[in-house]
Amino acid sequence: MNSDKQIIAVDVMGGDGGIPLMIKGIEFAVKLFPSEIGELVLVGNEAAIQEQILRCKATFRHKDVKIYNASQAIDMAEKPMHALKNKKDSSMFRAVDLLREKQVAGILSCGNTGCLVAGGTLKLGVMPGIDRPALATVIPAPTNHFVLVDVGANPATSAKSLVHNALLGTLYYKAAIDPQKDPRVGLLTIGTEEGKGSETICTAHEMLKKINGEIRYCGLIEGFQLFGGEIDVVICDGFVGNILLKAIESLAGTIKNYIKAEMKKNLLRMLGAFLASGAFRAMKRDLTADKYGGAPLLGLNGIVVKAHGSSSVEAVAHALRLTFRLSKMNGEQFLNNRIEKINLLIE
Amino acid sequence: MNSDKQIIAVDVMGGDGGIPLMIKGIEFAVKLFPSEIGELVLVGNEAAIQEQILRCKATFRHKDVKIYNASQAIDMAEKPMHALKNKKDSSMFRAVDLLREKQVAGILSCGNTGCLVAGGTLKLGVMPGIDRPALATVIPAPTNHFVLVDVGANPATSAKSLVHNALLGTLYYKAAIDPQKDPRVGLLTIGTEEGKGSETICTAHEMLKKINGEIRYCGLIEGFQLFGGEIDVVICDGFVGNILLKAIESLAGTIKNYIKAEMKKNLLRMLGAFLASGAFRAMKRDLTADKYGGAPLLGLNGIVVKAHGSSSVEAVAHALRLTFRLSKMNGEQFLNNRIEKINLLIE
Repeated sequence: MNSDKQIIAVDVMGGDGGIPLMIKGIEFAVKLFPSEIGELVLVGNEAAIQEQILRCKATFRHKDVKIYNASQAIDMAEKPMHALKNKKDSSMFRAVDLLREKQVAGILSCGNTGCLVAGGTLKLGVMPGIDRPALATVIPAPTNHFVLVDVGANPATSAKSLVHNALLGTLYYKAAIDPQKDPRVGLLTIGTEEGKGSETICTAHEMLKKINGEIRYCGLIEGFQLFGGEIDVVICDGFVGNILLKAIESLAGTIKNYIKAEMKKNLLRMLGAFLASGAFRAMKRDLTADKYGGAPLLGLNGIVVKAHGSSSVEAVAHALRLTFRLSKMNGEQFLNNRIEKINLLIE
Repeated sequence: MNSDKQIIAVDVMGGDGGIPLMIKGIEFAVKLFPSEIGELVLVGNEAAIQEQILRCKATFRHKDVKIYNASQAIDMAEKPMHALKNKKDSSMFRAVDLLREKQVAGILSCGNTGCLVAGGTLKLGVMPGIDRPALATVIPAPTNHFVLVDVGANPATSAKSLVHNALLGTLYYKAAIDPQKDPRVGLLTIGTEEGKGSETICTAHEMLKKINGEIRYCGLIEGFQLFGGEIDVVICDGFVGNILLKAIESLAGTIKNYIKAEMKKNLLRMLGAFLASGAFRAMKRDLTADKYGGAPLLGLNGIVVKAHGSSSVEAVAHALRLTFRLSKMNGEQFLNNRIEKINLLIE
């Protein structure tokens, strides 16, 4: 195996749905995106994987799929330090090992975020010029879907890391949303007047103005601007981003469930909901994050994509496609060309 | 005038709707809550206020309403330091002066938040034992509306201030939502395992466990728990809270507008929306923040309530009721009884 052949390793033990859901997700990906999904290495308990492939009569048996046995699994509550010490033969870390040894071009895991960040950073190392990796995700909005970065890899960030996030987010936008567009980047804060917000924010704002041209920096933005279609890449530290992401997902889900429940309260409403069902289908289509599915851990020497522990079959399929796309787009070169120049400009 | 008579001063120059909207809001309050609205002092341009009262034939002319003339107004983009120096006779600062001189029991303003925080803190001073004031607000959710504190008064907070926010938020919950309930308090972070999150969060968590009993502390919470009905008072720093509040409001508005637009796309959907209109009315009733309206600036020597610059007539009316309620509930005594004890426990 070598990375030119675009082989992706999938940690099939992570995720709340276990092996069955991961296998279904992979199968769905092969069906939805036959031209984009290349070779796969499924990492986990070999017997269980074999059994599941047979059980669900997975069509991808015909494709080039290998299994790499790993005797351990990392659970969702496990602490990174404990896992690094005691779970050397876990599916997640074995997948990372395959990437480090360049046997695969990228990895996908739905497992424990903290362990993936710690294991990925330690085993792969960060790219030259970058201090810390960042987790990026796509937030769906009616006018334009946007990238939010960092959503949890680096909670106590520096101004320089925020600037790097702008570059990493730009790369991810091109991979996940639109390769042709130079996305508009905004720095999230609590007031857009110059000098407002923390010292870190103010310093990052000055740095970002300096590197405008390398990326398309549009200035400071506030929370109420997120969904207005003005910005394509939103930068923040991992503490704010993680809380924001979870709150946004939770609120959207809450509103959806609320409407569903209200629509079922009497026959008249049920009829109304039936007649207007096109609107709800449109909403499901436009405002779901499932078609992005993965949150790449950017800035490492290698493509690492994290998908939600609670990913649906569709989300796993899209996350797998994203992993192949990121592997193919040669993000390393995109970053290498810019990161040194940016660091010179801001130092 | 003295504060026992429950007189509230209203800065009628702040807010995007200007004097007309404020006057309408006050009139609406008198109509909706005749037993709760006491005496009022309207602070601003006397001639303009008189004219507006006559123009809209405000019924509260019959109530005990005084006008206090102020020659200046603070606009929304004005910086606090500039305003403090140059806008001594502004409606906002004159209202604060009336409160400091105990001529009124509380004030309401829809004006510039930064100026109100700065002017309020400087002129009134913080309560003994409290380091910094905090802005609190109510977020509507289907199962339970909850208090979020701080939403912007204190962006770079300390562990001790977070603990004080828990107490201030508890007080506000009792004033705005349910006087009989001891609200469940949660500290917002990015992972609920012990030791996760920033040092400030970890220290505050330990302190909050120590004062459990004085308030009802339920532990660390994550963004996805906000809307699940588990917590009544959510504590965070003003940077996170401000971004979160604005993002939540923006997302809720975005989804509402999206559904509206989709429902109007063809006749079938319009009929469906008409039949199901009860569901949308329920949503408007259950998920609006208008009936809270105000965000009190808590922890000062005096009741200061800030309402949105873009407040509706209904929001102004509810914010005014809140100002009277906070003035009547003797929050100072509630806090005085607890703050010294709490500070001893956590130091």
